[in-house]
Amino acid sequence: MDILKKTLEKIEKIDYALSEKTQKRLDNLTKPQGSLGRLEELAGKIVDITGNENPSIKNKVVFTMAGDHGITEEGISAYPKEVTPQMIYNFIRGGAGINVLARHAGARIVVVDMGVAEELKIKNEKLKIKKINYGTKNMANGPAMSKSEAIRSIEAGIEVFEEELPNGIDIVGTGDMGIGNTTPSSAISSIITERPVTDMTGRGTGIDQRALSNKITLIEKAISVNKPDAKDAIDVLSKVGGFEIGGLAGVVLAAASRRIPVVIDGFISGAAALIAYQLEPKVKDYMIAAHCSVERGHRIILNYLGLKPLLDFDLRLGEGTGAALAMTVIEAGIKILAEMATFQSAAVSEKIDKHSDELVKG
Amino acid sequence: MDILKKTLEKIEKIDYALSEKTQKRLDNLTKPQGSLGRLEELAGKIVDITGNENPSIKNKVVFTMAGDHGITEEGISAYPKEVTPQMIYNFIRGGAGINVLARHAGARIVVVDMGVAEELKIKNEKLKIKKINYGTKNMANGPAMSKSEAIRSIEAGIEVFEEELPNGIDIVGTGDMGIGNTTPSSAISSIITERPVTDMTGRGTGIDQRALSNKITLIEKAISVNKPDAKDAIDVLSKVGGFEIGGLAGVVLAAASRRIPVVIDGFISGAAALIAYQLEPKVKDYMIAAHCSVERGHRIILNYLGLKPLLDFDLRLGEGTGAALAMTVIEAGIKILAEMATFQSAAVSEKIDKHSDELVKG
Repeated sequence: MDILKKTLEKIEKIDYALSEKTQKRLDNLTKPQGSLGRLEELAGKIVDITGNENPSIKNKVVFTMAGDHGITEEGISAYPKEVTPQMIYNFIRGGAGINVLARHAGARIVVVDMGVAEELKIKNEKLKIKKINYGTKNMANGPAMSKSEAIRSIEAGIEVFEEELPNGIDIVGTGDMGIGNTTPSSAISSIITERPVTDMTGRGTGIDQRALSNKITLIEKAISVNKPDAKDAIDVLSKVGGFEIGGLAGVVLAAASRRIPVVIDGFISGAAALIAYQLEPKVKDYMIAAHCSVERGHRIILNYLGLKPLLDFDLRLGEGTGAALAMTVIEAGIKILAEMATFQSAAVSEKIDKHSDELVKG
Repeated sequence: MDILKKTLEKIEKIDYALSEKTQKRLDNLTKPQGSLGRLEELAGKIVDITGNENPSIKNKVVFTMAGDHGITEEGISAYPKEVTPQMIYNFIRGGAGINVLARHAGARIVVVDMGVAEELKIKNEKLKIKKINYGTKNMANGPAMSKSEAIRSIEAGIEVFEEELPNGIDIVGTGDMGIGNTTPSSAISSIITERPVTDMTGRGTGIDQRALSNKITLIEKAISVNKPDAKDAIDVLSKVGGFEIGGLAGVVLAAASRRIPVVIDGFISGAAALIAYQLEPKVKDYMIAAHCSVERGHRIILNYLGLKPLLDFDLRLGEGTGAALAMTVIEAGIKILAEMATFQSAAVSEKIDKHSDELVKG
């Protein structure tokens, strides 16, 4: 509890004075004011978060955290649970979606076993073992994990982040792997956003209509059996959460405590972001929403957090794939700030009447 | 006319058999089917366009074409027209938005003087001179250019493309520079899409409300004075177009004739795409819409062409900036196809019941 408490205390409220100054710099670059839209917004945001007027995002890291879920025994996923460890081996060999997109973005990945149901038969520098337990318990029958495990999962996420920090981290992406993990994510987000389970529950990796109805019924049962307290994120995480979700909440909090921007991937990462937000609302300003997932409920999470997603690409893979893809456009925003010429340096004439009226977007 | 005619004849109807085959390959990669959404769509699209089942997009080129516009004498732009050549010098020195974003995307740029109102005082391998004339005439009083100039501008675009082809082109982006060029673009798109001028006219680089009303009145006047024939793209281009718009239409046609995907940037590029489409409707299938611009009317153009933009970043700079940015995500789609492991190669278990029911997006 000590690590978590200290991390929460370190998260500062952002002072927006720097981004106003940055916008003045952006306005003096050789383009009509504001004409690079969200690229300019991203540049200002990274300046605000880091407190650095000339930020670089050379060191990009995606944390892909894995865990298993007791609720899979109810048949809520289209894939068998052995896929969780199998995909970890795939991450380590470099053949998964996140490997391809992280390489494309120039990001490295850190894979974390937060609670896979079996012992992994591999050692690798990319893989960190922070196994809280061998999968969660079936939340339809009682808490998914103990309160102590919930806290330890968040703290393990913080630890992983802190262990990786000496290798350089300028921007962080969140990623998940865990067969069945849209189910706890739907439960968490339904509780925290106070929306009905049906609004927050989708087809995950691809279940049919009957399985979807069953999934909704099970989530409703898990909530009624466990009665999580929406105001107590640890209670929510322990009763209907997952180890990788706790770990990712820890990564989000750790990044904010270090003033490092954190790119939130999809639906499971969104549920982790909600946990982090309930623990410390200030963390929201350190988040950048990578994309809006196909998984219904994700848009509701983003609205709840006041985040506008960068991409809308019909993604629903997880692993951090959306976060890695978004990093490429975020980096473009930083480069605009760093590399573009000013009207003066390029000897380009400015607007005819700079003080005409306010530009209203046409 | 001969170059244009031959190019139009070479544009083939795309056979979609290859993308169906490609989707089967994508479905066998270690991810739920379709879970990489638009990245998968992009991979299929590039396969279809190129006819190559393993396409690479190593050689990326943005053609940024510049021209001046007689209508600027009516005060329709927020910037003076000397900015057109000044920005060309900026492109050559590498300080403009397109330089930054093209470098980020790993693209090279080719800058073309299609009709700048003054003689450029610079020689550089990046800069091609295809000056059709020293700016167009004021279209509010008569045709912007002669029919022969309209054809020559399109053919010059084709020539520039063909001259660049030996240096390697796997994907093309369109870009524009020309103070005042949202005005002819609004006129062209209003005529071709048959929508009122008010729907197609925005604030360009940032004019005020009074200047916007004046701009609309002038475009309506230009249309009523010139009476362009919506079915005759050459007539439309000559009466209310611009040299860089004609040149970009040529680039689009040339790319399609060579089965090379062409990334359409924003509003001005959209108007050029409309000209190309009116000349040969099959060209549409070779286009990828980079983004949806702030400039109103752009969405109408995209709908008319049946194109769904990749990004929605509130961009309104032109130059090819949106196209360059989009290239980074398009390349990600190609890498997914090329680099991801299959279920077999990674020894990952497949879906429990592959034949359950059809996945409906949740």
